[in-house]
Amino acid sequence: MDKSLPNRAIEWQDQQLILLDQRLLPGTVEFLFIDSVSGTFDAIKDMVVRGAPAIGVTAAYGVVLSALTHSQLDKDKAKQQIEIDIAKLNKARPTAVNLTWALQRMQKCLREQKNNTIASLEKEAVAIHQEDIAANQSMGELGATYINEQSTVMTHCNAGALATGGYGTALGVIRSAFAQGKLQKVFANETRPWFQGSRLTSWELEQEQIPVTLICDFAAASALRAHHVDWIIVGADRVAANGDVANKIGTYSLAILAKHMGKKFMVVAPTSTIDLNSVHGNDIEIEERGHSEVTQVGEKVMAAEGATVWNPVFDVTPADLVDVLITERGAVEKPTAFKIAQLFNKKDV
Amino acid sequence: MDKSLPNRAIEWQDQQLILLDQRLLPGTVEFLFIDSVSGTFDAIKDMVVRGAPAIGVTAAYGVVLSALTHSQLDKDKAKQQIEIDIAKLNKARPTAVNLTWALQRMQKCLREQKNNTIASLEKEAVAIHQEDIAANQSMGELGATYINEQSTVMTHCNAGALATGGYGTALGVIRSAFAQGKLQKVFANETRPWFQGSRLTSWELEQEQIPVTLICDFAAASALRAHHVDWIIVGADRVAANGDVANKIGTYSLAILAKHMGKKFMVVAPTSTIDLNSVHGNDIEIEERGHSEVTQVGEKVMAAEGATVWNPVFDVTPADLVDVLITERGAVEKPTAFKIAQLFNKKDV
Repeated sequence: MDKSLPNRAIEWQDQQLILLDQRLLPGTVEFLFIDSVSGTFDAIKDMVVRGAPAIGVTAAYGVVLSALTHSQLDKDKAKQQIEIDIAKLNKARPTAVNLTWALQRMQKCLREQKNNTIASLEKEAVAIHQEDIAANQSMGELGATYINEQSTVMTHCNAGALATGGYGTALGVIRSAFAQGKLQKVFANETRPWFQGSRLTSWELEQEQIPVTLICDFAAASALRAHHVDWIIVGADRVAANGDVANKIGTYSLAILAKHMGKKFMVVAPTSTIDLNSVHGNDIEIEERGHSEVTQVGEKVMAAEGATVWNPVFDVTPADLVDVLITERGAVEKPTAFKIAQLFNKKDV
Repeated sequence: MDKSLPNRAIEWQDQQLILLDQRLLPGTVEFLFIDSVSGTFDAIKDMVVRGAPAIGVTAAYGVVLSALTHSQLDKDKAKQQIEIDIAKLNKARPTAVNLTWALQRMQKCLREQKNNTIASLEKEAVAIHQEDIAANQSMGELGATYINEQSTVMTHCNAGALATGGYGTALGVIRSAFAQGKLQKVFANETRPWFQGSRLTSWELEQEQIPVTLICDFAAASALRAHHVDWIIVGADRVAANGDVANKIGTYSLAILAKHMGKKFMVVAPTSTIDLNSVHGNDIEIEERGHSEVTQVGEKVMAAEGATVWNPVFDVTPADLVDVLITERGAVEKPTAFKIAQLFNKKDV
């Protein structure tokens, strides 16, 4: 593995979208070059790229690719086709609201343009990407203020540079806290069924020499008891208006363990992940993926033929299990609908 | 897969020990024929056979194999060698106390014999095996009395016929409740890192057409919330004198989830699994196994090279999270040291 390769999961270069194929990590570092909407759609659906903010950024670039594809059409026809592609991209995956958020921004930009559609859309997509990185960095700094010296933290799934425009949400806080010399150790849950913890988080942290210990998900209670973990830090795929958090399956289990054992629970997510249209967590559509993700690992078949499987990809952690929600607009301690509304009423930062 | 093959993980035939190789399930049903102590030791250590009661039964037969191996020696020398082999077998795995329990029974039998050592040891090993099956059946009946009509239950790891002399502890209760028409559905956690739930429990239950749904371990909280699970039913590798339960990693996490969500938690274990010498759960040695169980599945490498891993095989669930402990001598509700002592003071049943 070439250590000089960028961590960034998403690059926009010469009007092409370049995605690190996260399905192949950590064994193989391979980039896909994408120049079509259908290529973008498949990359999101098939999890070449995953993580709510990264999905949003990718979809935004997909809209630029749509504009490039339709550049030979007359302006109105092109706009029509781009709207169709936006609607298509919005169906790639259901739970991460950043997808819809980014596409709505691109749609607004599209509708406002009289001329230079491609240039404007490209500028908007790059802005979405850059703002996401900036948001991650400011969330990293803010989240790190909650971490004391000599802390041990635990994270679930991958909410790192790979899951975002760059830097990371949960791993952004971990990066910042580590840079400040506050972190002793990070526990990474392996995160079945897709092993984001093993494949992505341990890889990302090792590249920066942040000390990480990998555990099986259900070893979390033992680790919390035996190792004096101070904070559990996770990202989010969608936060409801009341503070309920949809995130990678297992987050809810982990939050209950934290509550029971008196550990602190931090969710790190930009406001693009907060969906004011989802009043409660129950309003969030939870994606279910194929059975083979559970019954098979690589070529190895793990379960009896025809086994019935339930494979929800996300779960919903009730707001009352969250100690603090870190956003780029500020921290929301013990989130409630009122406090989250206040966050949005602040002047833009 | 030949459905007519016995579920029994352990057979004693013509002075040979026949073990179903559980590492190959569910894809391959293959039996190993073992005629030596070292073969028995390796089979336990390498998890050809696993599950606390099954380990005890296997070790007992290993002592018979020792006696057969040393049958040409004079009586005292033979006894000496058998004692050495007993000590060796006792080190095969550290957590399941049934290993020590069964070997102590065999040792007692050995020391009491003047003549016919082999025949006596064989009789004792077969008795241990038969008594385990009988205990499972009576625990199954007793545990099922706690299950209401139309119930859904969840189990972790494999505490079935494969983990015992036959019938099963946790799965014994599930078998009995199903036979009584009380069970709607069983959730089986896949049980990382060894996938006992996927590979063994779903296979065992499907063979008897008990409806089973496989989930990733950390999906347990979602399943408990979404599916109205009534009871969580698990086995044990060792129960301390105060009722703390060492069992497959994840049991502790699951018990916390059950507590938080108001679900009932049942542990099913014969008294041979209760270790009065372990005063508290903290006194129980928790085996840690190799890193590759976590970083690799089959040939597929899941984690960055050199990843640090913590892989405890068991965890300890505090007694206060257990609603009922089912033994062949009776049920202990809300187990305490006093109630467990009472259980042992009962006349033998």
